[in-house]
Amino acid sequence: MAKRKDIEKQSWKPGNILSPVPAVLVSCGGTRGWKPNLITIAWAGNVCSEPPLLSISVRPERYSHGIIETTREFVVNVPSLRQAKAVDWCGVVSGRSEDKFAGAGLTPAAALKVQCPIVLECPLNIECRVRESLELGSHTMFVAEVVAVQVSSVLMDAKGALHLEKGGLLAFAHGRYFALGRCIGHFGFSVQKRKKRTRPPIRVKTVAKMGRLRKKAAGKARES
Amino acid sequence: MAKRKDIEKQSWKPGNILSPVPAVLVSCGGTRGWKPNLITIAWAGNVCSEPPLLSISVRPERYSHGIIETTREFVVNVPSLRQAKAVDWCGVVSGRSEDKFAGAGLTPAAALKVQCPIVLECPLNIECRVRESLELGSHTMFVAEVVAVQVSSVLMDAKGALHLEKGGLLAFAHGRYFALGRCIGHFGFSVQKRKKRTRPPIRVKTVAKMGRLRKKAAGKARES
Repeated sequence: MAKRKDIEKQSWKPGNILSPVPAVLVSCGGTRGWKPNLITIAWAGNVCSEPPLLSISVRPERYSHGIIETTREFVVNVPSLRQAKAVDWCGVVSGRSEDKFAGAGLTPAAALKVQCPIVLECPLNIECRVRESLELGSHTMFVAEVVAVQVSSVLMDAKGALHLEKGGLLAFAHGRYFALGRCIGHFGFSVQKRKKRTRPPIRVKTVAKMGRLRKKAAGKARES
Repeated sequence: MAKRKDIEKQSWKPGNILSPVPAVLVSCGGTRGWKPNLITIAWAGNVCSEPPLLSISVRPERYSHGIIETTREFVVNVPSLRQAKAVDWCGVVSGRSEDKFAGAGLTPAAALKVQCPIVLECPLNIECRVRESLELGSHTMFVAEVVAVQVSSVLMDAKGALHLEKGGLLAFAHGRYFALGRCIGHFGFSVQKRKKRTRPPIRVKTVAKMGRLRKKAAGKARES
């Protein structure tokens, strides 16, 4: 049932309030005469599973827009909290006037399948090739195929399972950066059957002892 | 500088690893002969600021796909942790066989601009009209315009400012739900000038006292 405080709603003007969203460092350039560059993107998301596609939206006036439009490739570098300041800085300054890798203290490294560099410090590097670009208004949406993924070894356990919580990921919500908090559950947790508790069977001796203890306690209670 | 453990990378097969992403309850139907329905979506994001557009990606075999394709509208209901179990459940069962509002214990309520219901319990309700649909492969991406926004009063402070952290938002990362954690900073924090500290001036008397204390301590150190 809805509580009263949930029911009280305010109407807001239409806007981009969907939260939380990722805050990623997109690297591009380093080829066809473009210098390597970084741009911080929050308008990004997974859009298709098969083939694996994601989208990023970039304003045409941004320096990286021209790079991505001509090179048709980029890397989505998913940062950890350690790169939070760099993420913010790369969203504020322009690649036209700044060497963003140097300014943010980040290391460009070779990608596996694309020409532009990855950000070595970021725990996830998602290499993408643009398949479609949609001019939507203030932003161009680049729909791109994931062609390679690199994962930092620190995110893996001994069995090879991925633990994103080890990366200390960053989320963005209405103009603020947040750390990812506690895990609530796996997909499907709401229908998962609880494991039966495997309690050891109660031994007769223990039952008899418990009976005696109970009698003793009852006797004491009567006395007092 | 990159530390060695950042440099050690593993190559993974291409996939939807971009994280964190939102986990939202999309409501649709309730019009043109369709019953009201809910679908959990993690492939969602903001894609344009002006006009305000977002995208959701839905598999064609999902019951909601037909509803959204014919009605051309839906509501993105951003849940709080209190709806985490409902979010998961609505992603597991199908609207063909279940009344999802009833099954999840959620309350449908009238939207402001669209015909389909909002989820009353969710702190943010983003009403959308479909502008484009792209068949990408396993998923159809619906690019939709935000036509109305409702915000629960619990998220607002006395001055009318929005505090999403009060909502206890939910994020999704590689098959697991997470709570949003601590705030790292506002957009632009990396270039913000620090406020000057207004320390009281050190008084001469205090300086003299500190000198005496230092001499006393040095004397004691010599003694021991």
